[in-house]
Amino acid sequence: MLYFRYGFPSDGQLEPALMTFQPTPASIPPRDNRLTLRQPSGLPPNIQPLNPLQFILRAAEIYPNQVALVHTDSPAWYTYSVWCQRVQNLAYALLQAGVKPGDRVAVIAPNSPMTADAHHGVLAVQAVLCLINTRLKPSDVAYILEHSGSSIILVDHEYTHLLPSNLKVPVIVNNDTGKQGDPYEDFLTVGRKFSKERGWPDLEYNADENAAAVLCYTSGTTGRPKGVITTLRGSYLAAVANAYESNIRRDSTYLWILPMFHAGGWTFPWACVFAMGKQITMRTVDYPTIWKHFLNSSVTHYCGAPTVQVVYTIHYGQRLTSIQIGIVNDPAARLLKQKISAIIAGAAPTANLIGSLESIGITPIHVYGLTKSQYGPFTRNYPQDSWAKLSIEERSKFMARQGHSFATAQDVRVVYPPKDGSDQLVDVPRDGKAIGEIVTRGNIVMKEYFRDPEATAKAFRGGSFNSGDLAVMFEDGSIAIVDRQKDIIISGGENASSLAIEQELASHPDVLEVSVVARPHAKWGERPHAFVILKPHASKWKGKHDAFVSDLKEHAKHRLPGFARPEWITVVEELPKTSTGKIVKVELRKIIAKL
Amino acid sequence: MLYFRYGFPSDGQLEPALMTFQPTPASIPPRDNRLTLRQPSGLPPNIQPLNPLQFILRAAEIYPNQVALVHTDSPAWYTYSVWCQRVQNLAYALLQAGVKPGDRVAVIAPNSPMTADAHHGVLAVQAVLCLINTRLKPSDVAYILEHSGSSIILVDHEYTHLLPSNLKVPVIVNNDTGKQGDPYEDFLTVGRKFSKERGWPDLEYNADENAAAVLCYTSGTTGRPKGVITTLRGSYLAAVANAYESNIRRDSTYLWILPMFHAGGWTFPWACVFAMGKQITMRTVDYPTIWKHFLNSSVTHYCGAPTVQVVYTIHYGQRLTSIQIGIVNDPAARLLKQKISAIIAGAAPTANLIGSLESIGITPIHVYGLTKSQYGPFTRNYPQDSWAKLSIEERSKFMARQGHSFATAQDVRVVYPPKDGSDQLVDVPRDGKAIGEIVTRGNIVMKEYFRDPEATAKAFRGGSFNSGDLAVMFEDGSIAIVDRQKDIIISGGENASSLAIEQELASHPDVLEVSVVARPHAKWGERPHAFVILKPHASKWKGKHDAFVSDLKEHAKHRLPGFARPEWITVVEELPKTSTGKIVKVELRKIIAKL
Repeated sequence: MLYFRYGFPSDGQLEPALMTFQPTPASIPPRDNRLTLRQPSGLPPNIQPLNPLQFILRAAEIYPNQVALVHTDSPAWYTYSVWCQRVQNLAYALLQAGVKPGDRVAVIAPNSPMTADAHHGVLAVQAVLCLINTRLKPSDVAYILEHSGSSIILVDHEYTHLLPSNLKVPVIVNNDTGKQGDPYEDFLTVGRKFSKERGWPDLEYNADENAAAVLCYTSGTTGRPKGVITTLRGSYLAAVANAYESNIRRDSTYLWILPMFHAGGWTFPWACVFAMGKQITMRTVDYPTIWKHFLNSSVTHYCGAPTVQVVYTIHYGQRLTSIQIGIVNDPAARLLKQKISAIIAGAAPTANLIGSLESIGITPIHVYGLTKSQYGPFTRNYPQDSWAKLSIEERSKFMARQGHSFATAQDVRVVYPPKDGSDQLVDVPRDGKAIGEIVTRGNIVMKEYFRDPEATAKAFRGGSFNSGDLAVMFEDGSIAIVDRQKDIIISGGENASSLAIEQELASHPDVLEVSVVARPHAKWGERPHAFVILKPHASKWKGKHDAFVSDLKEHAKHRLPGFARPEWITVVEELPKTSTGKIVKVELRKIIAKL
Repeated sequence: MLYFRYGFPSDGQLEPALMTFQPTPASIPPRDNRLTLRQPSGLPPNIQPLNPLQFILRAAEIYPNQVALVHTDSPAWYTYSVWCQRVQNLAYALLQAGVKPGDRVAVIAPNSPMTADAHHGVLAVQAVLCLINTRLKPSDVAYILEHSGSSIILVDHEYTHLLPSNLKVPVIVNNDTGKQGDPYEDFLTVGRKFSKERGWPDLEYNADENAAAVLCYTSGTTGRPKGVITTLRGSYLAAVANAYESNIRRDSTYLWILPMFHAGGWTFPWACVFAMGKQITMRTVDYPTIWKHFLNSSVTHYCGAPTVQVVYTIHYGQRLTSIQIGIVNDPAARLLKQKISAIIAGAAPTANLIGSLESIGITPIHVYGLTKSQYGPFTRNYPQDSWAKLSIEERSKFMARQGHSFATAQDVRVVYPPKDGSDQLVDVPRDGKAIGEIVTRGNIVMKEYFRDPEATAKAFRGGSFNSGDLAVMFEDGSIAIVDRQKDIIISGGENASSLAIEQELASHPDVLEVSVVARPHAKWGERPHAFVILKPHASKWKGKHDAFVSDLKEHAKHRLPGFARPEWITVVEELPKTSTGKIVKVELRKIIAKL
């Protein structure tokens, strides 16, 4: 029962099946297990190429019997010692399947032990982990498999329908049972046999820390997805930074709400192992399960977009299931015994959300990063002492800022568009007003777009990554996003931020979600058009569309300058979203074009 | 008063002069302070050479008004914003004095703001920080200045007598007042003027992360000191690891007991800044001052050798002052309101020490590293859950082990001496018995001995750093030092660890300190000879030398095998120690040779 000491109930009240779970025989490490890979030759003794694979070996050496990974679906759980052996088995299984250094290994799966294994096992054969979003269309999956040139595919049984029929590479299906007979488990067993107990020392660390670690494709709303390449060095440094900034430690329990395929889970699959803490994966992100873990599994950390907190739309393959109940609105929500840190990115948390989270013991950590260029957080909103005396509304305005450069990140600048023919970037003044583009550089910026030198060159024009996010910089050096470059609304010659309008409209007591786009206007050029989802309890507006529109316009009048007030408001049941939960404004523009 | 929010009393009960302290005008940053250095050209945007200089710029950007550095002697204190400007001033002052990239800048000073400044300012001009032990003899200092080829010397007013008279390089004296008119302060002011407010952006980061950062000389008991070169990359990674492992955070207060010149303060001068926490420096390490800070300054962390905890011998220049009262034995010692983490290295903490520390709220973190090869901690004793049910005596035996590889460290092996002509290292079995030498490699192992390729090659024979420490490895992969290679006592063909004998003799209630060396013996080859200092309260043995010897031998009889029991015991008033507080066994052997 010692295994459960860290954050997992030993009284068996949760998932009694966990108590009797036994890992497969192939998962049990040999007695004289050497937890070290061969060092690449020719390097001086004071240089070890940075590689996040080191973390799991170290954890298995220091805390072999500590619970590392818990999956309540199968159910299954693994100590660091056992998990590390499974990772080794995966490495040898990949070798046996012919995977060579630099090859891409595709994973199409929900958060589950296989996805977690792959973060380490793929690196152990110096291959590249290609994480594929399970919410994509089969045609997109086919494109990614083709473009990445993946030489083997690890796929969860629920997502085999996403695979093209004419595949020429091996496919390993995971039934996610953790039991012998499961094809994935058998694959690991084959790996163990193939290894002939040569163990870790017969594998070698990648000699090049700037080699690719992960390949994740963007889920752009226009054009083909681009393949973002991150490196071993960047992954190592980002993971260490995340462990430090989020204060994940050995006694921490990280709950996987963020999909691991979303920018490689922001490097948290490694950060948690660096910390030698515990991870809990769940196939399905639903609020009752989240709350079960919050209340029973001593969860201390999770990552998620603000939409996860408030309202989360999950796409299962092509089927779209909306779970319109947020963490804070779930019936199970209550004041927590333990403190939880919620690492929030994707959009700024609102005053309402901050207040709700804090009231139940969840501390929001607001970070900012781009799936399409970074490893996860690149900036963080660093709380200031002076905020303590502010009202939550005032404080939330500061907390909504994207803040300053993250630990181990580097330059975050807001710059004017470069003049024609010039590569010189000019910073905007620190006045909180002048709008420029966020550009970044440093060790936790992506290396390149895979097999796309043109897109890479364009993205790094001027020597920094061009984020496409428009922002202002305040006197204290903190940044705040104003809008996506393409979403700004130019009304009467003024720049109206769709984000700012959305934020103000969202403060209306009956608005659950809102998205604002530009609509052509004869006189002003463009004017804002707002699409609104009402809160479930807002039944008083039922059949009173015009009355609600008047009410919301009145609400906007006190909060927005004339040029930024929505000219049109449409109440909708649902907003079009990408597979990662972002609203697809291009779809809203299409609706407008038809009006 | 906000400045004092983090861990410093705002009620003025401590050092009222601090409240009225004003930094020099040159220390005040300009309004439009840009906190970024020029990026070396030719690097891809996703590669930033690791450099611990980044930390202070980031801290000054995010928490400009937070107290960063407090010096209660002058007294003086600086916020991150002001401190960062002073560091910039130092950089320009060094440039103005002709310092070029790669030059060595010598610092001879106690823990004080100048030493802290130099850790950042010297890197800002891509020079190498040469920290010189203030406890050395003038002849050793002269040798180091000559050997390092230091091109400028920053010296504390109390240590100018250590300087040779025929110096041909500029010397800047620090009177450590923090006030205008102080030569060091005037040097900074000159730097500010020389900068013409070009600020940080006119300085450039070192393009080579493997360039030298710090040069510290060994204080070997035999031969000339050797210059240990550490790199920017190693310093960055070691500092981040120390912040993480010690859990130093923004609300932490680190008290400088360990001298910064001791292996560069184990990279804590940077670790505290990475954490954006607060550092307190004091010129003199005495127990009343330590306790004043423990009780009044919300100290949360300090580093020190175990001798600091129990008994500490401080050499002022040539004058040797023994302060025979340890932290735990100080009259002011009492249960602390806050928790303090004590990072202990140099020798294993005893059961007695662990118990005493824990009883007043100090948690010992036992680490191991070598001044002569590493950046500070390279291994750590990681507490295991199973120890919770052990008695303190049993637990302390586990806690005395040097443990496992530190975060960001890498290989720690215990190997047999290589066979003649072979470079192949063979690991000892993990049986807790077989004795081998500790060898290390990885990013936080030193780069080389400065201008000594022969000593470097010898140290790295076999491709790892040869520590000269003999150890065993247990089944769980943890290591425990048995002895220094040269201190082992071969008695009747058995290897007797002088350390193990010392540990057992130290458990006698009247023994304060003990050192054991080999003495030739006609029958057994060698036998142990113990030199003992009695505790101040052990007056009952006054004039009863032989009775005490019998008592201690009786004590040893129950604890040590025959071959390891001391044949001879001598009670002394004082033990010969190096400038870093280590007992010089070679001096004891000289005494024996004369017997």
